[in-house]
Amino acid sequence: MSIVNHQFRLAARPVGLPKRSDWTFTEEPLPEPGDGAFLVKVLFISLDPAMRGWMNEGRSYVAPVGIGDVMRAGAIGRVIASKHPGFAIGDHVYGGFGVQEYALSKGEGVAKVDPNLAPLPVFLGALGMPGMTAYFGLFDIGKPQPGQTVVVSGAAGAVGMVVGQIAKIHGCRVVGIAGGAEKCRYLAAELGFDAAIDYKTDDVRKALRQQCPNGIDVYFDNVGGDILDAALANLARHARIIICGAISQYNNTTPVKGPSNYLSLLVNRASMTGMVVFDYADRYPEAAKAMAGWLAAGKLRSREDIVKGFETFPETLLKLFAGENFGKLVLQVAE
Amino acid sequence: MSIVNHQFRLAARPVGLPKRSDWTFTEEPLPEPGDGAFLVKVLFISLDPAMRGWMNEGRSYVAPVGIGDVMRAGAIGRVIASKHPGFAIGDHVYGGFGVQEYALSKGEGVAKVDPNLAPLPVFLGALGMPGMTAYFGLFDIGKPQPGQTVVVSGAAGAVGMVVGQIAKIHGCRVVGIAGGAEKCRYLAAELGFDAAIDYKTDDVRKALRQQCPNGIDVYFDNVGGDILDAALANLARHARIIICGAISQYNNTTPVKGPSNYLSLLVNRASMTGMVVFDYADRYPEAAKAMAGWLAAGKLRSREDIVKGFETFPETLLKLFAGENFGKLVLQVAE
Repeated sequence: MSIVNHQFRLAARPVGLPKRSDWTFTEEPLPEPGDGAFLVKVLFISLDPAMRGWMNEGRSYVAPVGIGDVMRAGAIGRVIASKHPGFAIGDHVYGGFGVQEYALSKGEGVAKVDPNLAPLPVFLGALGMPGMTAYFGLFDIGKPQPGQTVVVSGAAGAVGMVVGQIAKIHGCRVVGIAGGAEKCRYLAAELGFDAAIDYKTDDVRKALRQQCPNGIDVYFDNVGGDILDAALANLARHARIIICGAISQYNNTTPVKGPSNYLSLLVNRASMTGMVVFDYADRYPEAAKAMAGWLAAGKLRSREDIVKGFETFPETLLKLFAGENFGKLVLQVAE
Repeated sequence: MSIVNHQFRLAARPVGLPKRSDWTFTEEPLPEPGDGAFLVKVLFISLDPAMRGWMNEGRSYVAPVGIGDVMRAGAIGRVIASKHPGFAIGDHVYGGFGVQEYALSKGEGVAKVDPNLAPLPVFLGALGMPGMTAYFGLFDIGKPQPGQTVVVSGAAGAVGMVVGQIAKIHGCRVVGIAGGAEKCRYLAAELGFDAAIDYKTDDVRKALRQQCPNGIDVYFDNVGGDILDAALANLARHARIIICGAISQYNNTTPVKGPSNYLSLLVNRASMTGMVVFDYADRYPEAAKAMAGWLAAGKLRSREDIVKGFETFPETLLKLFAGENFGKLVLQVAE
């Protein structure tokens, strides 16, 4: 084959926001799949806040991406060559294919997706990791009861949008926190959130007090920082906080801001629990089935923010940290 | 009666450490108990870190002590006059009698204690609220398994000493954090802790890494601040943190230091849960029975730091915040 594979490789460990010079744009000849392997043409790459953490040195819930390695990323692609009995040319697949145009795989961690069930990018959103994260974080850790108040930050992001909608389906009062009037309007008017708080203009602590007169029973945190503190200041007795992420802190050049109001956990006999979606891998089918049902019934909407152009990866990734994405951020690599 | 009752009343909300001028020392004639009431001569007053929180304005797990009110405190006393059918002259009782020499009571929240079972001050320690706090915090929230590693801060304090000993009885590896060589020696040599870390001289984070090679499974936190962060940096997968107190932060004149390392909860799928012992009131007998059995069997030791002299209350209370108490701090009011 004379096709060339382009890749973004990690060139340096970023300080603060990742710059273009933290990446190397490389090209190499397309490899042929050997026995038991197949070749995937990558179509859509998932851009996630967690990627920022993978770029740092040091112990986390997965090993860091090595300097010189293709950047780790989940992606959707199409099999274009195969010597693997389980994957045929034309199959659509999800896997950790990385930030590159083509990927060789032996099938580990790869799942087939059905483009008749939903548009392919939805498998990176509500039917993908963000959906799984929302489902298990909310229901397994948050354990909301119908009628209770659920608050979610990063509510117009991939995880937050699903959290809010499935909490509504579950019969909860749902308050979203997002940045900007348009996002807040969308959450309340289109997705049925009971209220949306604009952290760019509102006093979040005061707004939460107004919107959650009985306190917050479940707080799903994607952002950390001052918003986590505002939520802590408004907990109900026995509240559950899910620590899913802390996007406000990922590009800090100063230490992480710890939640000053954490003693509210004591006052309210509340808990704060971290979650990593991969722990629920053997239960993904349960969540995917529920999510697909709600999507088909029109009770759950998936929204993707699709940016075209593989070469834009370094800049497109930054949309996450500027809060510019509206729904699940996806990099479209090919038609 | 011509006896006079002396009292310490809250005169002002302290800024930082409570000063003598934050108290009024008052005297009033001793009241006669009416029908259904009894009069207690206070013998031992419990001095607790939580008292500092009760002096602040604002919502907490109990209402603040009002300005001009007798300071709230648990205490042990002897009934000296009674028109209550359930309490007779000579009975020894525990109750929220406050920082005063005599207290009128109608029996609400009052329990008889048996001086033949243990010396009276022990009912303010291992057989009192500190013991109950240790028991329910450790077993109900921490849920340690035999063989797991339990770390406790404030380990030479009233709660911490019990936590460490009952975790040892339960078959755990126990590491205590305390201030000073003498306390650390006592924990390891006398109480059987596997290790004791002196936060005044050791690098706590590094020492925890050495003493907990498989990470911390249960961390019982009484202190907050940098020590909480050091523990967070050394968690095992699925660790449980009990937030019982934060004595390092109670006298802050700057905002509480939130735990910068809280994202370790995410990395390790760990939880941090607040507890208030009063929630377990209906299960105190269960804990008291276990504790009394261990005391009788010589498996559990109670240690009290008894200071004589009612008038020393303002200064004696400060021993807690200077880390000067060694075991349960008790103010002896009368012989």
